[in-house]
Amino acid sequence: MLDHLTRLSEVGKTADGGVSRVAYSDFDREGRSLASGWMREAGLEVTIDEAANLVGTRAGSEPGLPPLVMGSHIDTVPSGGNYDGTVGSLGAIEVAHALWESGIRTRHPIEVILFQNEEGGKTGSRALSGELELKELALTTLAGKTIGEGIRFLGGDPERLAEVVRGPGRMAAYLELHVEQGGILDRDRIDVGVVEGIVGIKRYDVAFEGFANHAGTTPMRDRQDALVAAARFVDAVYRTVSARPGRSVGTVGRIQASPGAPNVIPGRAALTLELRDLQMDVIDSLFDELGAIARVIARDTRTTATLQEFYVSRAAPTDERLRRVIEEAARGLGLSTLRLPSGAGHDAQSLASLCPMGMIFVPSVGGISHSPKELTKPEDVVNGVNVLSSALLKVDAEPRL
Amino acid sequence: MLDHLTRLSEVGKTADGGVSRVAYSDFDREGRSLASGWMREAGLEVTIDEAANLVGTRAGSEPGLPPLVMGSHIDTVPSGGNYDGTVGSLGAIEVAHALWESGIRTRHPIEVILFQNEEGGKTGSRALSGELELKELALTTLAGKTIGEGIRFLGGDPERLAEVVRGPGRMAAYLELHVEQGGILDRDRIDVGVVEGIVGIKRYDVAFEGFANHAGTTPMRDRQDALVAAARFVDAVYRTVSARPGRSVGTVGRIQASPGAPNVIPGRAALTLELRDLQMDVIDSLFDELGAIARVIARDTRTTATLQEFYVSRAAPTDERLRRVIEEAARGLGLSTLRLPSGAGHDAQSLASLCPMGMIFVPSVGGISHSPKELTKPEDVVNGVNVLSSALLKVDAEPRL
Repeated sequence: MLDHLTRLSEVGKTADGGVSRVAYSDFDREGRSLASGWMREAGLEVTIDEAANLVGTRAGSEPGLPPLVMGSHIDTVPSGGNYDGTVGSLGAIEVAHALWESGIRTRHPIEVILFQNEEGGKTGSRALSGELELKELALTTLAGKTIGEGIRFLGGDPERLAEVVRGPGRMAAYLELHVEQGGILDRDRIDVGVVEGIVGIKRYDVAFEGFANHAGTTPMRDRQDALVAAARFVDAVYRTVSARPGRSVGTVGRIQASPGAPNVIPGRAALTLELRDLQMDVIDSLFDELGAIARVIARDTRTTATLQEFYVSRAAPTDERLRRVIEEAARGLGLSTLRLPSGAGHDAQSLASLCPMGMIFVPSVGGISHSPKELTKPEDVVNGVNVLSSALLKVDAEPRL
Repeated sequence: MLDHLTRLSEVGKTADGGVSRVAYSDFDREGRSLASGWMREAGLEVTIDEAANLVGTRAGSEPGLPPLVMGSHIDTVPSGGNYDGTVGSLGAIEVAHALWESGIRTRHPIEVILFQNEEGGKTGSRALSGELELKELALTTLAGKTIGEGIRFLGGDPERLAEVVRGPGRMAAYLELHVEQGGILDRDRIDVGVVEGIVGIKRYDVAFEGFANHAGTTPMRDRQDALVAAARFVDAVYRTVSARPGRSVGTVGRIQASPGAPNVIPGRAALTLELRDLQMDVIDSLFDELGAIARVIARDTRTTATLQEFYVSRAAPTDERLRRVIEEAARGLGLSTLRLPSGAGHDAQSLASLCPMGMIFVPSVGGISHSPKELTKPEDVVNGVNVLSSALLKVDAEPRL
């Protein structure tokens, strides 16, 4: 499998050692072609579903059981790394291959899905959960094609997307191996992360309105400086979220002061606030706290504050039984584990509404991701695949999940 | 004179009641044509100097004395108001007119100068002080003409600018009446401001460098958020400058976080810092204090800070004898006075290196300026003109200024 990882890294390789294999590009199709060959070598029957996901299946020994599904994605961000998505995709194929080679037939059917266009909006996995909206087909992607054109380019049929939707009960469980993309496991030298869930996200537009005035003629005490208000809010976001127990994160990523000249006191300052947590009510409680702080800041600076939600992504908790199965699998292999949230989105998020979902993280060196510097050490890749394999067999053995 | 003010406000009038009479526009030339008529009615001999300043002169009674000069400008910012520059320009003409009508001949010659393009860089007054640089002639102005073309358009000769430079001793004194443009006199109900000088300005580019990272996967404690650092600095600028005794001002007018996406922790945040004070060493001391604060913030946030000066305008103090003359003139008229700095630049700034310079401020309602809402009440305009007139006569009577 490490050999497959190296070979796939050549497809869309960039000069700086990273990879640009954006969804619907020629490199994306070339990578899928390589992967489907490896799927066949793993004893899987390969098809492309209507949503252009690459699906490999192998029948189980007990008729009538729903499949155990493993998956991830092989598309990348522009100038991305060789591990995000790829480790879980090739890891799932490797698990199927090992079962095939050792002649083990599972009770449940095995399914390996390489979801298309994860980086551009989890298009493939959201098609399965029925969340993909018709209007998204017209969106232009980084490869220059619309999503609709991209689906056709990869062998799907955008007019038949309804057929790909899977209702609850159609899958026994979904397991995804992925690199952490954060630095917790690497920093604390933990082998395997047991994902508690994919965090929910809320994003808000925040604006402070003061009064634009001459920076030379307006004494400090007479100012209604919207940027001073915004600056206090940015610091308050950092301090408030940091002080909250748990693993919430809060970020101001964008800010603008208007009119934006060095010699004019800003009359308006606008910024984005993003809050993430495993529990939506923690996000809401943080937002309430920050809203109250914004009002105090506005009063102190004689400005007005407005906060407006513009994006929501619901949290997707993993299945507690699968967390335990993953922990047992790791323990059986002598590996240390840590429960942690996934701060990034994953295909698993879409699957969470359809079946019990579990995720396995392996360390990202320095927490770096979406970068050519992204790295997961070979021994950690192997550990992850072994945990995935062991967990899959444990789930398969469960009389009733 | 109030009638002149109204008539001039029609030249370049905007729908919102303001005025756009930018330098070198047709409206600018039309306004100057009106004003030169009023200058002639005031007994002044009108010429246009090589720098296209409109100059009105009247001989004095004692041969060999240098002129007493009054002046300001009648060009405006786009969508500006009817008082900035205009009050001092028409006020100077009015003083000359009153002397002419009452048959008073001063010892010194009287000179009224309406400087061209004050708003676009004090071009006319800086030509007198020899500060205008050749390369500025090629700069395109808001009227669409270069400064060189503009000078020609108004009747000057950009090739003979050297002839307009006035050495020290060529003028006995310069007095300028102007609206405050700040809100101090209006707020404290003071009739007349005695300007202590025009503040010096230094501007700096400030940048904090941290590490851009995924806003979902990077725990709060692992962040090197450049915007959090910048935000703390913005607040520190406000608090530090406010806490300093005196009338220093400090402003952050522009800020940018990079890469600037709601879901990415900013790896870089850049901002502008502007400091103004009557004393350049106070500016430097504030900058040293803020530099030290920036280094503490950088250490606390695990970022690095750089501060780079990119603009300097030297402070121009007024003449202490002229401050006293203005105070005496106001007292004689039963008007209250307050000494205060001018936070904005004025033509008087260019003259300060050539002769004793004094400035008289009258209140701006609400401190609003460079706006159609700019307003100085008629009684305050009249007060200002009376103080200018009285101060001019007091200076004229001084055996030796």
